[in-house]
Amino acid sequence: MTDKRQAKRQKLRDDLLRAAADRIERDGLAKLRARDLASDVDCALGALYNVFADLDDLILHVNSLTLHALDDCLSHVEHAHQDAPPQEQLIALAHGYLDFAMAHRNSWAALFDHQMPDGASVPDWHLNEHAVLFTHIIRPLGQLMPGLDPEEAALTARGLFSATHGVVALGLQNRFSAVPPDKIREMLVLLIGGFARSASF
Amino acid sequence: MTDKRQAKRQKLRDDLLRAAADRIERDGLAKLRARDLASDVDCALGALYNVFADLDDLILHVNSLTLHALDDCLSHVEHAHQDAPPQEQLIALAHGYLDFAMAHRNSWAALFDHQMPDGASVPDWHLNEHAVLFTHIIRPLGQLMPGLDPEEAALTARGLFSATHGVVALGLQNRFSAVPPDKIREMLVLLIGGFARSASF
Repeated sequence: MTDKRQAKRQKLRDDLLRAAADRIERDGLAKLRARDLASDVDCALGALYNVFADLDDLILHVNSLTLHALDDCLSHVEHAHQDAPPQEQLIALAHGYLDFAMAHRNSWAALFDHQMPDGASVPDWHLNEHAVLFTHIIRPLGQLMPGLDPEEAALTARGLFSATHGVVALGLQNRFSAVPPDKIREMLVLLIGGFARSASF
Repeated sequence: MTDKRQAKRQKLRDDLLRAAADRIERDGLAKLRARDLASDVDCALGALYNVFADLDDLILHVNSLTLHALDDCLSHVEHAHQDAPPQEQLIALAHGYLDFAMAHRNSWAALFDHQMPDGASVPDWHLNEHAVLFTHIIRPLGQLMPGLDPEEAALTARGLFSATHGVVALGLQNRFSAVPPDKIREMLVLLIGGFARSASF
């Protein structure tokens, strides 16, 4: 492939990725259509399939961008609270997760709503990126419970993340009854603070 | 309407409800199609719209059945552990929720996956039924934290349910990496036990 063709291909890929990220954030994953994206970047519908395997591949790459943005956000929180007691670090991270979810509602929901087609599984390169959801929890957890072996620590981090995600996800959904953000914040303090105080016995 | 017509209508309604419940449990909500249901119960496609407002209305009624089954399951757990200390009651209820989710995987997922069409909201009669997700938690929570006022108690019950749901939902999903059920059980003990010990200070 010539440099010029390569550059054109890369530009199309970047444009489609940006258009898909914008549409997912604005209208939600469920409304994403390949033909709208082709129209956004002014290319033929078939051209999308020259630079991405299919629409799911494109969505995985948008989700990858979202995970990187979440990683940045949580790294910032981690840095700002690195000298605080571990339970305060864990609560700050949970609040950071809530803030991210509120600021990027549809992109964040797409991380959990996207389903691969029947028979296909999420590729390893993307699966590994989900580690960002747990890694920020591992360090304060280690300070709080220094006796945990790595496997227990990983499981506990996953449990704490899942509990936080449950509170944030059901709290923000209008499904049952939406909970005001400051109440979600309070619930997280109650749960994580409780867990931390108990763990530090 | 004559009694005979009324009875025929009621039978069609029951048959469609049963067919939809079976299909959702077997194939998942995403694959539910009105024409398959009409074929299951051997009626014209339009007949479905004589007894339900639309497919969403039918799904809400299937979800209602699922919530009743969950209520029965949690009532049984509550009864079996009513004399245990409150933290054990709360853990038993969380384990009961996990057991129900594993036994009725797709029907349980439909409770959270179903989205009303744009502009429509979940009707109050169904919204109120979701209380079953929290009510079983209220009694042991009141024993554990007798000082809570009703509003705080409701919020705390919702938070505990959301955390439990998060651990169960992400644990059972193959999305990141599925967690074996006994590990999910352990995570619930860790989180709820921790919360309970902290709350009883």
